[in-house]
Amino acid sequence: MFSTMQDVPLTVTRILRHGQRIHGGSQVITWTGDPATPRRRTYAEIGARAAQLAHGLRELGVRPGQPAATLMWNNAEHVEAYFAIPAMGSVLHTLNLRLPAHQLSFIIQHADDRVIIANGSVLPLLAPLLPALDRVEHIVVSGPGDTSLLDGTRARVHDYEELIAGRPTTYPWPDLDERAAAALCYTSGTTGDPSGIVYSHRSIYLHSMQVNTAESMALTAGDVSLAVVPQFHVLSWGLPHAALLSGFSLLMPDRFLQPGPLADMIAAERPRHAAAVPTIFQALVHELAERPRDISALASVTIGGSACPESLMRTLDERYGVRVAHAWGMTETSPLGTTSQPPPGLTPEEEWPYRLSQGRFPAGVEARLIGPDGAEMPWDGTAAGELEVRGPWIAGGYYGGAGATGPERPADRFSPDGWLRTGDVGTISPDGYLTLTDRAKDVIKSGGEWISSVELEGLLMGHPEVREAAVVAVPDERWGERPLACVVPVTTGEVDYAALRAFLGERLARWQLPEHWTTIEEVPKTSVGKYDKKVLRARQAAGDLTVTTLAPAPR
Amino acid sequence: MFSTMQDVPLTVTRILRHGQRIHGGSQVITWTGDPATPRRRTYAEIGARAAQLAHGLRELGVRPGQPAATLMWNNAEHVEAYFAIPAMGSVLHTLNLRLPAHQLSFIIQHADDRVIIANGSVLPLLAPLLPALDRVEHIVVSGPGDTSLLDGTRARVHDYEELIAGRPTTYPWPDLDERAAAALCYTSGTTGDPSGIVYSHRSIYLHSMQVNTAESMALTAGDVSLAVVPQFHVLSWGLPHAALLSGFSLLMPDRFLQPGPLADMIAAERPRHAAAVPTIFQALVHELAERPRDISALASVTIGGSACPESLMRTLDERYGVRVAHAWGMTETSPLGTTSQPPPGLTPEEEWPYRLSQGRFPAGVEARLIGPDGAEMPWDGTAAGELEVRGPWIAGGYYGGAGATGPERPADRFSPDGWLRTGDVGTISPDGYLTLTDRAKDVIKSGGEWISSVELEGLLMGHPEVREAAVVAVPDERWGERPLACVVPVTTGEVDYAALRAFLGERLARWQLPEHWTTIEEVPKTSVGKYDKKVLRARQAAGDLTVTTLAPAPR
Repeated sequence: MFSTMQDVPLTVTRILRHGQRIHGGSQVITWTGDPATPRRRTYAEIGARAAQLAHGLRELGVRPGQPAATLMWNNAEHVEAYFAIPAMGSVLHTLNLRLPAHQLSFIIQHADDRVIIANGSVLPLLAPLLPALDRVEHIVVSGPGDTSLLDGTRARVHDYEELIAGRPTTYPWPDLDERAAAALCYTSGTTGDPSGIVYSHRSIYLHSMQVNTAESMALTAGDVSLAVVPQFHVLSWGLPHAALLSGFSLLMPDRFLQPGPLADMIAAERPRHAAAVPTIFQALVHELAERPRDISALASVTIGGSACPESLMRTLDERYGVRVAHAWGMTETSPLGTTSQPPPGLTPEEEWPYRLSQGRFPAGVEARLIGPDGAEMPWDGTAAGELEVRGPWIAGGYYGGAGATGPERPADRFSPDGWLRTGDVGTISPDGYLTLTDRAKDVIKSGGEWISSVELEGLLMGHPEVREAAVVAVPDERWGERPLACVVPVTTGEVDYAALRAFLGERLARWQLPEHWTTIEEVPKTSVGKYDKKVLRARQAAGDLTVTTLAPAPR
Repeated sequence: MFSTMQDVPLTVTRILRHGQRIHGGSQVITWTGDPATPRRRTYAEIGARAAQLAHGLRELGVRPGQPAATLMWNNAEHVEAYFAIPAMGSVLHTLNLRLPAHQLSFIIQHADDRVIIANGSVLPLLAPLLPALDRVEHIVVSGPGDTSLLDGTRARVHDYEELIAGRPTTYPWPDLDERAAAALCYTSGTTGDPSGIVYSHRSIYLHSMQVNTAESMALTAGDVSLAVVPQFHVLSWGLPHAALLSGFSLLMPDRFLQPGPLADMIAAERPRHAAAVPTIFQALVHELAERPRDISALASVTIGGSACPESLMRTLDERYGVRVAHAWGMTETSPLGTTSQPPPGLTPEEEWPYRLSQGRFPAGVEARLIGPDGAEMPWDGTAAGELEVRGPWIAGGYYGGAGATGPERPADRFSPDGWLRTGDVGTISPDGYLTLTDRAKDVIKSGGEWISSVELEGLLMGHPEVREAAVVAVPDERWGERPLACVVPVTTGEVDYAALRAFLGERLARWQLPEHWTTIEEVPKTSVGKYDKKVLRARQAAGDLTVTTLAPAPR
């Protein structure tokens, strides 16, 4: 028997057509710094201008299957590019304007970007790169900026508004295969070159539907969502696509990402929902404590990117009536991987462990845990393994650059049967709640078991004599790896390692206790403030640390 | 550029696996008539039993691509069949136990059903059909019933529980193409033979995601939904699939569809949501007025199948705090076509026209209105046309029966470019709200314009002398068609047609006023109480009505 259903592709074009027609009155509200004059643009206008932009880009030589890049904040013009470029059959390449210059240059060349739409305010970042980017042909500048910075570049410079002015407000959007490339994002790997993920029309469409389900962000045409998460960061977690799909309005901060303006825009535009990394909300809470604003409209926030501290969740919940939904994801997962909705029937206090977990997987994300020996681990809430995922909005490879004939599938990122190896280590409860404990590269693989460096660090920092602590693996002939505890003491005197080990021994099994110890002045950190353990590993390998090895602990 | 995303099919199997693992504790609650002892079965159990059922059906000869039929109420075993049959690659064929015997026989033969799973309580309906159904090989009986009714049939009779007992609780579910056939439903056309729609795994998956969006039914793992709408009626509007997708529990009435038991089960099991046709809720409201129950848990209901009277919506809303979402759909649309969520920012009273409309289209349902001359009509809230729809869960043809090589696409049901012609006539507002006014076959096509028979009937019945009125088209040499008003007067005397026409003339344009009039004793009705206009048209064609034709109305 055969299906009698219509065969209609799931495309960004369909989302655009739907949003501009059915939700034509919903808006992208772009912050300008002045609460009295945000820029408001309806989805009907966004749709018309996206068509004009497509005509303009076509004239600049952008063709189906080719990338067109953006180097922009969250604003209405970036939303226009989000729809114009994929709908014309080309590939939206969002450039991360927080990356170091050498990575940005690498990415632009790797993707073979010929056209870049840039906000005027980021030209000081872009201009110095251009001399080395000899394949970039056109820079389209949106919004105020010092275009004289571009004087002398080979690329032709266009004003965004002039490029689209007077062009037709409809475009003959081509019929597209739903598996065609729609958007390109690079992960900002802390080691090695960035890797490109090419989302398809299908993956974006399905992910956007998931965002709009009640179990995820539950947004509808009546809502306003403040998208703090940048459009250059995993497609703003899918919010622009989800917005035109279900008609909620987007409040876009443009370059005003400081806590003061964010509090102002929440007070003025009254979004019901917001999405951002925890540090943004941490700063917002401090801002509100110093200069209160009315943020009573804000009912729920999606927090992801890194784990949200319990204290922040409780402050938002108890002081401001803002419900936090914790979410886990990565560039390779579009990014929606889990959301922490507690199971039904619990008291508020019983809900906390679930709310603090990374949450449950939606049906679109199949999961498994792979243990130290490569076997699948049970979902019992205690057995740890590396999380591997599979699904229609999960990457199955990386982009090999112009000229590549298919995705690259490095064995450390993709399993032989095609699942994504997330590099995250954790446990899953019998009812499917994920709790992440470590990055796989930070776990100590000792005698066929895993020792959590994060757990050791957390316990050590609970000792009154320890200011900071980082734990890294060192090679061990018998066990494979053993933990090295690097301690920053509160006072400058001698550290009593045996006492610290005994302190850990009250909470951990003997085989988990570090025998190698060292004292450091501070834990080295990355530019975003994360522990940079590769520096510690390098110092240890170079013999640059004074390591004390204790005799086995007494039983 | 190529996409680097994984290619993972959207299948019923994935929904089953997800539901049984992530939402293994959610339940199908089957009513037994006794509030103290409903049957509770978790999704983990449903999954295990679905595997056992698949083993059993395989032993009975059910093969991939072949149908296996159900003749069942809404209950746990029917949910098991919903997942077992498509996941094993076969096609779930839900038989409508309300159909007349000759239609049921036709459908079973047309689909070439060899295996039928039937509830014991419906054997009195099935048994008389079997002698003529010589290709049915197996009857699997679930639940109590008089199996002696099946004595002497050619088919082998099995007990459901005996068939599955002791079999493995896992099944090697095959990898399936998402466009493969998953389920088969026949429309109960009022004229002609029923037509079969074959849903694909893809269409069911996408439709289920839509059900779970916040703009549609917004159900999550914390909820219980009372699925009054039968599982044999457009897959219970997608609720069983949506339930395992997002983890809400299903409250299933089994054969207890009377208002008393429905009120009992709402009071006892406290569902937050329910879905049914308006008459069910009308009866429930009467029941509650006579014998009050606590239905305070019920917060929202989805009402479709036919238009919901405003009075019923207001009673549910104002007396019981139950919010009604009006929905439109048909078997050909899976069925979710529209849902009436009002736009934001309105007062409760301003919301009413939107709530009474059929609602807005989701992105998965593209719509257009085709006017009398075949041209697309504007979305201005006044121009009427036949609604045509397109999308990934919309039928593109009918099943031609065993041996057919592709879908049948009758020109009166499918446009040349593949859109479904719904047969419904209405208007669409600029912001996408659909208001249906007529069935296309009941519209009078006069001089390139459409005259709404429903509007004429409504106005006529507002006249104090008119008890009932039906308006049908009669052929007209000059105009194509003209309206014939068939009036049932309140008293038995002569009807003053000219006065009625003048009454209509206060509200309608001259060209819309009927010149042909007749008096009838009552309007003929179908078995479900709808006006049966084909009887009136036949009587008119046979010269069986005394028609008075008035001179043109004075200007």
